[in-house]
Amino acid sequence: MADLFSSIVGSQVAKRVGVPQPTRLRRHVPGGPLCEGPVLVAGGGRFAEGIAAWLDGLGIPTVRNVDDQTRTGTTVGAVVLDLSAATDPSELDQLRVLGAPAVKALARNGRVVLVGTDPATVTDVGASATQRALEGVVRSLAKELRHGATANLVLASGDARDAVRSAVEFFLSGRSAYVDGQAVRVGTSTRTDTDTDPLRPLAGKVAVVTGAARGIGAEIARVLARDGATVVAVDVPPAGDALAAVANEVKGTALQVDVTADGAGRRIVEHAKGRHGSLDIVVHNAGITRDKLFVNMDEDRWGAVVDVNLRSILRMNEAILGEGGISDDGRIVCVASIAGIAGNRGQTNYGASKAGVIGLVTALSEQVADRGITVNAVAPGFIETEMTARIPFATREIGRRMNSLQQGGQPRDVAETIGWFAQPGAAGVTGQVVRVCGQSLLGA
Amino acid sequence: MADLFSSIVGSQVAKRVGVPQPTRLRRHVPGGPLCEGPVLVAGGGRFAEGIAAWLDGLGIPTVRNVDDQTRTGTTVGAVVLDLSAATDPSELDQLRVLGAPAVKALARNGRVVLVGTDPATVTDVGASATQRALEGVVRSLAKELRHGATANLVLASGDARDAVRSAVEFFLSGRSAYVDGQAVRVGTSTRTDTDTDPLRPLAGKVAVVTGAARGIGAEIARVLARDGATVVAVDVPPAGDALAAVANEVKGTALQVDVTADGAGRRIVEHAKGRHGSLDIVVHNAGITRDKLFVNMDEDRWGAVVDVNLRSILRMNEAILGEGGISDDGRIVCVASIAGIAGNRGQTNYGASKAGVIGLVTALSEQVADRGITVNAVAPGFIETEMTARIPFATREIGRRMNSLQQGGQPRDVAETIGWFAQPGAAGVTGQVVRVCGQSLLGA
Repeated sequence: MADLFSSIVGSQVAKRVGVPQPTRLRRHVPGGPLCEGPVLVAGGGRFAEGIAAWLDGLGIPTVRNVDDQTRTGTTVGAVVLDLSAATDPSELDQLRVLGAPAVKALARNGRVVLVGTDPATVTDVGASATQRALEGVVRSLAKELRHGATANLVLASGDARDAVRSAVEFFLSGRSAYVDGQAVRVGTSTRTDTDTDPLRPLAGKVAVVTGAARGIGAEIARVLARDGATVVAVDVPPAGDALAAVANEVKGTALQVDVTADGAGRRIVEHAKGRHGSLDIVVHNAGITRDKLFVNMDEDRWGAVVDVNLRSILRMNEAILGEGGISDDGRIVCVASIAGIAGNRGQTNYGASKAGVIGLVTALSEQVADRGITVNAVAPGFIETEMTARIPFATREIGRRMNSLQQGGQPRDVAETIGWFAQPGAAGVTGQVVRVCGQSLLGA
Repeated sequence: MADLFSSIVGSQVAKRVGVPQPTRLRRHVPGGPLCEGPVLVAGGGRFAEGIAAWLDGLGIPTVRNVDDQTRTGTTVGAVVLDLSAATDPSELDQLRVLGAPAVKALARNGRVVLVGTDPATVTDVGASATQRALEGVVRSLAKELRHGATANLVLASGDARDAVRSAVEFFLSGRSAYVDGQAVRVGTSTRTDTDTDPLRPLAGKVAVVTGAARGIGAEIARVLARDGATVVAVDVPPAGDALAAVANEVKGTALQVDVTADGAGRRIVEHAKGRHGSLDIVVHNAGITRDKLFVNMDEDRWGAVVDVNLRSILRMNEAILGEGGISDDGRIVCVASIAGIAGNRGQTNYGASKAGVIGLVTALSEQVADRGITVNAVAPGFIETEMTARIPFATREIGRRMNSLQQGGQPRDVAETIGWFAQPGAAGVTGQVVRVCGQSLLGA
């Protein structure tokens, strides 16, 4: 227990004093390599063989055991350890035996991805505890890695090969540059369209992004368009000029509508289907803050934040999920926040709305699963935006460094995670809340 | 988002510079008042009437609406808001309308307890989101409260009156002094023994505590004995003298056994039943750390930590839960750690073991529910022990202040939470992990 605080606090203090230049993170380049250097794929689980074969198919060199690795003498681009078959805690030592030498040789911006079995799907208590233990390893290891390297965990239920592959691909890639110390649960799906263009995985899809006129929303529009989607950029009428600029930039269309207005959902559906023929992806990004301590909170601040950030989504979803709305195998992605997980001083209203969004994602994902529709959320941490640029320097400098990657994230990092949720390959990923926070210290 | 970091970081920096004296927390005194000052009980949920009637029965003055409160002009000891019937996010504004004036008048060491419905038991998406939103409110509000006041949340499934009452009592009392910003899920139970002596709620119960020779374990033994239990203090033979002293102090018996030894569980059962006639409460507290970065971790460090902290519990539970073991309506409580939730640098082994403990609690609680046995965990944060006393001053000072109560907890705070899990009234509380951390900033 002592070490928990001495190490975290000590290293944070040291960092603040020294203020070293953080590592420039490796971000996704369409057509570029998935990751740099050979990938160690090890472990006796049910996914390792398939992952190795898939990487081989991509032309990425793999090594299958630690001896091979030691012989190469070079750095390792990534380490994928499949412990999904482990049923006793003693088997966790395999992580160390197989992984430690490779992690020691990990390249800058390297990746560690553990693959396990979702503990909730395991009936044996010892096996369930063993699988849950992987989460403790990943969260600890992510705090040890340096130079932009990350560690994340994929927990599969059943034979979720497609979804495991999709999640492993995401975590190996530059798309997950600012996603660190996360656990994602994935399951099987009835997906049939396994062949997508890797350069344009969203080709043929129509995506709606709310709050798209600026900041993170505009970047979501850009990334979805880059990945092949036709984008409908939505924002309030006063943001019309900025919205039009974004829509033009991404060769999509603009729709001026207040998400809290009656009929906003219907207008979105009609626009998408009328102008573009379908509605496949909806990103509920629009959100506001109106901070005030709870004891001084007024009705307007409370109501506006809950209405824009949460109630509007519930209302729009009625039309979006209703007759003639989003297509089967559609995607709904919400933008939550660390404040909805950890809470935040001055933000009882915002924290309520964003925790509510997480509740919405959890409940709705189960209800629309039989239609093949997934519902997920991102929870951004410290992202470099116009808003954070207004924080005084010293405070901002500490805030952006209170995470394992020792820097703030970019709007694109949030957008890339949303882009992954939207992919056909992520059909087995639903009900998840993925933090895009560089493994912020803050949590619940 | 900006405010998330500016407020947290800003206030933390200010605190470190000023280093104000933290509020002396109100802790449980047997026979003392449950809380100080009148309690506002408000909200239209299904538990408010019962809670008010119960408090009236205890002789604690209650006020039922904000006008009454305003008229009294005095401070409020606690605020209990029952939003369990809320089905639309717009109803969350009731928290502000009913609660804000009372929170403004909250006494030192006051309490805010929200009561809701477990979102997982609600099928309507809007209602589920609304209930989940309460978590965002509580976690944010807990970060705003000052002077030792806390905010916590009770989420009930169904008509869990007994368990709600038990949880509200815990959160109002000094037992929860260092529990802040937590959400506890409670359910119905088949409990029949509703009449317990409030001075000795564990009277007639036999409790085993592992790792009881010192620190938190010794304090658990003291608290359980104070609450009426007959305590079997367990520790390794080398700690025999200290163990005997603790056993004598609590008028219990000592059992020298290594929890990792073959037959440890059987010996515990035989001792408890042979010497004291039954086995009702088991607290798996024994644990070790052997820190090392993952890349340098050796087999001994890894193995010892996983074996003592996790595997031993699984093995002992076989005997404890087997034929002739723990009584029906027994209690199993494990000691996890924030490191098992958030991870920690240098503690991949420890984090694995403690995350595993959480997995064990989750899985086992479901399997033994039909026997009336509950399985829960505490997850301590920065607790003032011999271990933390060895941290260098400046680091220790920051570590102990990185939480909403701006101080470290006492071993007794961990013990009091375990004591609550052990109570007959907490029969509907199972599968829970309650952090005893003053709402540490650290989390996942």
